[in-house]
Amino acid sequence: MEDLLLVKIGGNIIDDEHSLSAFLNEFAAIPGHKILVHGGGKLATKLAETMGIQQQLVDGRRITDAETLKVVTMVYAGYINKNITVKLQARDCNAIGITGVDGNAILAHKRQHATIDYGFVGDIDEVNAAFLKSLLKRGHTLVVAPITHDKQGNLLNTNADTIATQLAIALNHIFDVKLVFCFEKNGVLQDPSNEESLISGISRNMYEDLKADNTISAGMIPKLDNAFDALSAGVTDISIGHALQLTKLLRRETGTSLFYDE
Amino acid sequence: MEDLLLVKIGGNIIDDEHSLSAFLNEFAAIPGHKILVHGGGKLATKLAETMGIQQQLVDGRRITDAETLKVVTMVYAGYINKNITVKLQARDCNAIGITGVDGNAILAHKRQHATIDYGFVGDIDEVNAAFLKSLLKRGHTLVVAPITHDKQGNLLNTNADTIATQLAIALNHIFDVKLVFCFEKNGVLQDPSNEESLISGISRNMYEDLKADNTISAGMIPKLDNAFDALSAGVTDISIGHALQLTKLLRRETGTSLFYDE
Repeated sequence: MEDLLLVKIGGNIIDDEHSLSAFLNEFAAIPGHKILVHGGGKLATKLAETMGIQQQLVDGRRITDAETLKVVTMVYAGYINKNITVKLQARDCNAIGITGVDGNAILAHKRQHATIDYGFVGDIDEVNAAFLKSLLKRGHTLVVAPITHDKQGNLLNTNADTIATQLAIALNHIFDVKLVFCFEKNGVLQDPSNEESLISGISRNMYEDLKADNTISAGMIPKLDNAFDALSAGVTDISIGHALQLTKLLRRETGTSLFYDE
Repeated sequence: MEDLLLVKIGGNIIDDEHSLSAFLNEFAAIPGHKILVHGGGKLATKLAETMGIQQQLVDGRRITDAETLKVVTMVYAGYINKNITVKLQARDCNAIGITGVDGNAILAHKRQHATIDYGFVGDIDEVNAAFLKSLLKRGHTLVVAPITHDKQGNLLNTNADTIATQLAIALNHIFDVKLVFCFEKNGVLQDPSNEESLISGISRNMYEDLKADNTISAGMIPKLDNAFDALSAGVTDISIGHALQLTKLLRRETGTSLFYDE
């Protein structure tokens, strides 16, 4: 099977033009099949403020009312997605920017919850691997914005870490998937305030122990939960690390790799 | 050769949810290869106002400074493009929303003008017919937002009528192209205030005469100039008519058709 590099980048890299360009230089230079899943960044929050739209977060997830959905669609699928795509095209990387709506790539449903109405938040039902494969096999790099749909005409806001995870799982029987979660830290840290305290390898048992003694910061938990979901589903090559060290990450010279418990 | 239906819809249809849905019902039901090019509508102007961005028009063309480019990218490539695509997906039409950036579909350059700085306005250099063909042949309907790029990392704002025209010309040797410009009038009118005064067929000589005696309204001129460019380039099946009469338009029961002078 051919390799597929699937990278998730978070908001902090997107918000800083210099960092984003540096990341894209490295990303564009890597040969082979590639998917880049991007999150949101502060622009959506800023635009919502400018438009006078109040935002709410529950458990770190945005509550997406109709007005917020409009903002995230404009910012994620419009501004961020096309800005990344145009920069990759300038680097001779034949990128195509998509959402989960395009080609029915990612089907989801509105989240059902006993007590919280998340609004237009989508939980993924199905990834259209055949569609994604067809674009990849034609030599396209896919830039994926975290917007999905329900086939009933509703756009839905879906967590970008979860999208990366579900794409990795769905494509793992077609490609040898390398899944990389990039952010602004060197990886999973023993001491979040010390970048040198990097844990180079982590298994689920280790993760549970680190959670139990509060070593893992709250913001890392959804990312690691997603990463371990991918591992459990058979994606064996997963790492977490700094967005500006992508090449070193892929060589395992930095970052945190996931491994199975014995 | 297989048929390709290439429809341009304008702002007035996009701004009205009921009209847009009615149009998409008809559009989705038409079998075969299809491309829908959409313009902007009032949302971009409204958002720019909310964000405190001043807009300028010269000869009916928007002057696109960096802030305006951000707004049109968000609105055209984000909000409008994904809303149309999600509605087509709900109608079992396997749509994929793209801009000229995606897959390097439409290459353009920043407009050069002796006296006016149009900002980030793009004039088209090349349409990537092979890329568009590959998506169409896989059964996708393409929804095209009027954003192009220069391969140097700049997004550019390009007139949607011109995009429809250039796509029609580029694809005309691969498909039997039917080019339809849809708007909120029944077609080219002898008397713009009377919808019954429809001119059912128009040649370039007739057009020049109608322009000379001011029968053609100013707003129609860029549309007709584009339509006659397509005709001159060999696209023989071109019509202009009401967005809510698409099926009748395709049957030539309404609208204005273009024809060659003897």
